[in-house]
Amino acid sequence: MSKIIIGSTPKKDGFRMPGEFEPQDHVYMIWPERGDNWHSGGKPAQWNFVSVAKAIAKFTPVTMCVNQGQYENARVMLGEDIRVIEISSNDSWMRDSGPTFVINNLGERRMVDWDFNAWGGLVDGLYFPWDQDSLLPTKIGEMDAFDRYRTEGFVLEGGSFHVDGEGTVITTEECLLSEGRNPHLGKSDIEEYLKEYLNVEKVIWLGKGIDPEETNGHVDDVVSYVKPGVVLCLWTEDKNHVYYDICQDAYKRLSEATDAKGRKLEIHKMPLPLENIYITAEEAKNTDVVIGSIPRAARDICPGTYVNYLVTNNGVIVPQFGDVNDSKAIKILQGLFPGKEIVGVETRQIVLGGGNIHCITQQRPSSKIK
Amino acid sequence: MSKIIIGSTPKKDGFRMPGEFEPQDHVYMIWPERGDNWHSGGKPAQWNFVSVAKAIAKFTPVTMCVNQGQYENARVMLGEDIRVIEISSNDSWMRDSGPTFVINNLGERRMVDWDFNAWGGLVDGLYFPWDQDSLLPTKIGEMDAFDRYRTEGFVLEGGSFHVDGEGTVITTEECLLSEGRNPHLGKSDIEEYLKEYLNVEKVIWLGKGIDPEETNGHVDDVVSYVKPGVVLCLWTEDKNHVYYDICQDAYKRLSEATDAKGRKLEIHKMPLPLENIYITAEEAKNTDVVIGSIPRAARDICPGTYVNYLVTNNGVIVPQFGDVNDSKAIKILQGLFPGKEIVGVETRQIVLGGGNIHCITQQRPSSKIK
Repeated sequence: MSKIIIGSTPKKDGFRMPGEFEPQDHVYMIWPERGDNWHSGGKPAQWNFVSVAKAIAKFTPVTMCVNQGQYENARVMLGEDIRVIEISSNDSWMRDSGPTFVINNLGERRMVDWDFNAWGGLVDGLYFPWDQDSLLPTKIGEMDAFDRYRTEGFVLEGGSFHVDGEGTVITTEECLLSEGRNPHLGKSDIEEYLKEYLNVEKVIWLGKGIDPEETNGHVDDVVSYVKPGVVLCLWTEDKNHVYYDICQDAYKRLSEATDAKGRKLEIHKMPLPLENIYITAEEAKNTDVVIGSIPRAARDICPGTYVNYLVTNNGVIVPQFGDVNDSKAIKILQGLFPGKEIVGVETRQIVLGGGNIHCITQQRPSSKIK
Repeated sequence: MSKIIIGSTPKKDGFRMPGEFEPQDHVYMIWPERGDNWHSGGKPAQWNFVSVAKAIAKFTPVTMCVNQGQYENARVMLGEDIRVIEISSNDSWMRDSGPTFVINNLGERRMVDWDFNAWGGLVDGLYFPWDQDSLLPTKIGEMDAFDRYRTEGFVLEGGSFHVDGEGTVITTEECLLSEGRNPHLGKSDIEEYLKEYLNVEKVIWLGKGIDPEETNGHVDDVVSYVKPGVVLCLWTEDKNHVYYDICQDAYKRLSEATDAKGRKLEIHKMPLPLENIYITAEEAKNTDVVIGSIPRAARDICPGTYVNYLVTNNGVIVPQFGDVNDSKAIKILQGLFPGKEIVGVETRQIVLGGGNIHCITQQRPSSKIK
């Protein structure tokens, strides 16, 4: 009941990826459990995922995909407003392993099923195997009846790009040109894939992201679209901050860019948390050692960023870390999204696993967008 | 997204189980794989399940629930018209471990989630554990958005009863009064459960079924409803046949019964296959030995019966065994279901596992029934 569309692309068929700020009718997530990424058997992270799911569900229905062994536990922890489904995964980053939804002028929706290799495959990926992650789009398509495009031979994760829904995509060179993804393709080949499968005309290239060792620099930690022509950029004035150069470079490139409509971008700045987020010795000690997975060590710095929020209908769900800048982040978003409710959710435990709210969610556009 | 309805029953809420001959909008099945029940790694049985699913799908959409390890294989074997879903199970008898659907006058549908214990639990059940089977109704409800009634403390399988949709249920004493199901309940208590959860007024009790060692005599091998007031009864004239006494007794009890509407039943006879169906030495040899499961031995007689058909909208899907009586069975059903297409499907491999087409399917009524 989920057909693979062979011999065509979304662009050829008139399908585009909408901006995250366009109407949605569903958000998909995956339940975290692997003990080599989530300390203490994943329990602290699970409670953070519950909070995120419940925050989203006030605005948009949520499906949580859960491995067999955690099904009953997740079903109880999540409460009855969340749809809990048995679908296996290797880890819980729906933005990256899940499908990207595209839509046409009639409101028909399809999925793009990107080739997924756990952020770098056997070159510098985070774990092996990723067989169950790779099946997620198939299983979601079967369950909820969406046909799909497959990009076999083209590796991409949803967290490595942001679109404005009007022909522009923003991404990073560090990630898309990384050795572990598509070393057989040049930059212009990769642009072609983005243009065909997201249905865009213009690729804005940033340099680096803030987590080179995990996602090879996903853009969704650094920049996000507020609406077409308006972006939010991670920012720090502290020259000694480990992310200083990255923020400067991102801001500079955005300032110099024009989008598919020929617009200069309006750029807003989002501060970093004042305090860096580290894994404690206790947390690191309670993380499983698994051969083939990246170990988590005490004092590893984690990519805490308020830019990794999710826009979902009338809500914006934004990470909070117990930091003095938490309230600043909410205030900035309130200014940028005047009609929406800004909901802060404590997500330190999600950051310890390598991402945040945007990384663990994947929105499905409403069929009422036209 | 699938709420448990507490403190009520279908009867109290005005929901009833429709007859199988009423309109359906879906049929659920489970993919077979366990090597201690299905010889040769389940492959021969899987091909029979594929044939059954495809036969049904001509009349009614089919969802196949598949364990993680068989997902990709099942997805390919079934072809793209079947919806293939990852939902775990311990074995593949959707009639028994799956939900029973009930409907009200508005066309709203709910599920009954019977307590399931693998046909007798630790007394004389067929395998241990049955934890994943028990979760099937929850997971189907979550996936397809149906609330459900649970009967904790009351064990029942869907294959142990047939309803006419007008207030009558037919069942067997051998099964419902068996020691491994509800030994704490008397016959009248059990009648009360049937009346409350199926919304019936009259229970017609038969004696025995034809597979005492497996299901403790499920009725769906012996009798089936054609329409309200009309039944089909397994039959043999051969006094030496192992099922002779069972058929005689079933026919006699049906002859003496009246249904909830006060009608005498019109009873038609369905012959047995002329040749008994046995597991061969080769097949038995290729069946896994698992502690706690009933072993399959060469020359075990299998309950081959044409009564174990599925009625689904304009089709009747009926077992075929390569027996001289195969065509007789089809002819009888053609006479009884004049507006429907009778589709025979070779199912010897399913019989070797202990059941047939009715046992491996569960229909969902259409919301258009009122």
